[in-house]
Amino acid sequence: MKRILNAQTIKYLNKKIKVCGWVDSRRDHGGIVFLDLRDRSGILQILCSPDSVKEVKEEYVLEVEGEVRKRPINMINPEIETGKIEIKASKIKVLARAKTLPFDIKTLKVSLPTLLDYRPLTFRNEKIRAIFKIEEEIISSFRKTMRKLGFSEFQAPTIVPLATEGGADVFHIDYYNYDAYLAQSPQLYKQIMLGALERVFTITRAYRAEPSITTRHLSEYISLDVEMSFIDSWADLMDTCEIVIKNILSDVQKKCQKELKTLGAIVPKTSSKIPRLKMREAQEIIFQRTGRDNRQEPDLSPEDEKEICNFAQEKKKSELVFITHYPTKKRPFYTYPDPEDSDYTLSFDLLCRGLEIVTGGQRIHEYEKLLKNIKEWGNKPKNFLFYLQAFKYGMPPEGGFCLGAERIVKQILGLENIREASLFPRDMERIDQRLSILQPKKKKK
Amino acid sequence: MKRILNAQTIKYLNKKIKVCGWVDSRRDHGGIVFLDLRDRSGILQILCSPDSVKEVKEEYVLEVEGEVRKRPINMINPEIETGKIEIKASKIKVLARAKTLPFDIKTLKVSLPTLLDYRPLTFRNEKIRAIFKIEEEIISSFRKTMRKLGFSEFQAPTIVPLATEGGADVFHIDYYNYDAYLAQSPQLYKQIMLGALERVFTITRAYRAEPSITTRHLSEYISLDVEMSFIDSWADLMDTCEIVIKNILSDVQKKCQKELKTLGAIVPKTSSKIPRLKMREAQEIIFQRTGRDNRQEPDLSPEDEKEICNFAQEKKKSELVFITHYPTKKRPFYTYPDPEDSDYTLSFDLLCRGLEIVTGGQRIHEYEKLLKNIKEWGNKPKNFLFYLQAFKYGMPPEGGFCLGAERIVKQILGLENIREASLFPRDMERIDQRLSILQPKKKKK
Repeated sequence: MKRILNAQTIKYLNKKIKVCGWVDSRRDHGGIVFLDLRDRSGILQILCSPDSVKEVKEEYVLEVEGEVRKRPINMINPEIETGKIEIKASKIKVLARAKTLPFDIKTLKVSLPTLLDYRPLTFRNEKIRAIFKIEEEIISSFRKTMRKLGFSEFQAPTIVPLATEGGADVFHIDYYNYDAYLAQSPQLYKQIMLGALERVFTITRAYRAEPSITTRHLSEYISLDVEMSFIDSWADLMDTCEIVIKNILSDVQKKCQKELKTLGAIVPKTSSKIPRLKMREAQEIIFQRTGRDNRQEPDLSPEDEKEICNFAQEKKKSELVFITHYPTKKRPFYTYPDPEDSDYTLSFDLLCRGLEIVTGGQRIHEYEKLLKNIKEWGNKPKNFLFYLQAFKYGMPPEGGFCLGAERIVKQILGLENIREASLFPRDMERIDQRLSILQPKKKKK
Repeated sequence: MKRILNAQTIKYLNKKIKVCGWVDSRRDHGGIVFLDLRDRSGILQILCSPDSVKEVKEEYVLEVEGEVRKRPINMINPEIETGKIEIKASKIKVLARAKTLPFDIKTLKVSLPTLLDYRPLTFRNEKIRAIFKIEEEIISSFRKTMRKLGFSEFQAPTIVPLATEGGADVFHIDYYNYDAYLAQSPQLYKQIMLGALERVFTITRAYRAEPSITTRHLSEYISLDVEMSFIDSWADLMDTCEIVIKNILSDVQKKCQKELKTLGAIVPKTSSKIPRLKMREAQEIIFQRTGRDNRQEPDLSPEDEKEICNFAQEKKKSELVFITHYPTKKRPFYTYPDPEDSDYTLSFDLLCRGLEIVTGGQRIHEYEKLLKNIKEWGNKPKNFLFYLQAFKYGMPPEGGFCLGAERIVKQILGLENIREASLFPRDMERIDQRLSILQPKKKKK
């Protein structure tokens, strides 16, 4: 007999079927045992004789044959898809046993470190699965939009010969007696690809050796990266970014209704056009609203990002806002200076509910200018010879942006800590489990 | 005026349009200059006055306005999509200049090391682009099949706390004063995911510190990974693998006709069912055919793989062949032993034109058996506590396989070296460019 999924059983009323899954819960009622069987499609109630399930406990894996029948009216459960039926088991086979659970994985009342230490187990919880279903939809929506807009996907390398975005927060690799690093972003490679493909995107891993623990940084994260050439102006970049993020929000809204409900989350609202403010304008607004004078600062603080989002929501009816024209000195060497004021750049961040979820900008496409900037930023052109080929031999005006997948998940769902939005988060204390459990710490170099 | 793509210009006969692209070639004919303009859609002939393109050389980036007109009959070029038309330029703007090319990128008569050192430039060549168009299609076909079969995609982590598949060929990372490694495969994580999702796939980077240079190994490669639970028998795995690879071959055949023609490649043929041979049977056949007696060897040599593929093609009309039942000692600790002979495993490789392109098998899903094997293989269970949770708390019978994307590209196209199938190949001498050019070698530890 071929196994069918739990959610499909409603089509087989009064028929004999086979289902498989994990025991989500067990309820003993005298001469009858009720099991909730969980598979990837949902929950199904199984009615068994006590003898047939003597040893069966939570998380046992079963194969059940039986008849699909209507539940008595007073037993109907409107909360689940199969709430009107149940299976009267005729044969139960244990496919795998489970040890006693360390905690209840349905209520999951555990601290975040424990939740993560036990990820293989806690991932079975409905709410946790809902988070990653939404992440899958975000990535899938991103890919769909990019293809529709004529972008080619490419696979970015992750072992790189130098620290692209700056020297400090980079992981070093022992590479056959040479030095190598984990890519902080696919930046240089997506620019290189433009020389032939014009418009590219990549979904890749990026790595930051963040030397502190915050609720918004991961050492390994999913970067959704876009780069496009033949732009007419840098506004093309924000326009494209706006299409991408709006599609993500509306796809999550449409396709993840069940998961949003499970998590009690509301997708961020935005106005028909996402507001765009220069960083200096944003600082002025923050000063006017709060009296906090950060108008000379070269960047927005986390507090500032929250306040400007409050402003956008109150005054512009948008939970998203673009901040543009960050100072030249705070941006990487490849960022295009504003022709009207070279102290600032044609760069932007997209903030959502108080946190940056996208960063982007126009890039310097002129070979000589780029060469000059590499030197001015204290780098050796010799180290960039490979990258520079793309510009030496003709590169059109271009730019791009990247979205942090986990940050989008976090902000859509209102999660407190970005680690909740990463399946297997890595930070300075953790790879899978807390490192202090597994390894002695090395002496600091 | 809005830019249109070269391939679209045929719809605008006698109209004024704007196109953009790179100068693929320049031909001066007295009072007229012909430019071939290349964009992501193809080549387009531009007719210009010598004055308007005085400085223009190959790989300059231009924006051209002009009228679309029919070419004279004797000037028609049947080789290109826009071969019946040309643009009479009225305005030419140089968007970017190019330095003199180091070699002709159309004929590309350079050695493989030079080809790779100049990847940003050589990627502009039509044949090279065709290789990676086919790679994109292979990955896309894989994803499409897996979704159709009800598999969920997940993002595997690449920084891991231990060397999964064995100790030697693993890259070490300096991780906040702890030890960490680059994942040799997403194996343990895809197994973990089964506990909730039942059927998963991931498209990820995998890393092998191969201490030698061969034509079939890369230090960083694209792994297409599948894992499925609730299998009835390990044959389910090969059946699924067969669907995946056949879809890949037929999608490449259908959707990459132009690229296959450009590269002069023929997609491998297979019989309606891919032949399946036990490793010992294969060795016997090889002995019978060649007199080479490797019947006691624990694995097939590269020479053996070629010979058994010759046999499959001659006798079974298939350029693909499954080899099964590899010896237990040659496979990782998680491989399921054959219940009929525990010296061998329920494992398989898929060979194509003489090279392994897939490896897979059933896994041990019973907690105690797995624990025992971890010890027997010389590992410490303490290091596998995270992974073991997935089995301790109920795991159905399961297995999976992984495809090497670059190997599939190589074998479909008949490339000599796998580096040709990697956009940015990494090996013991190269990251982007030859390392010896960039860095002094460290002293061997």
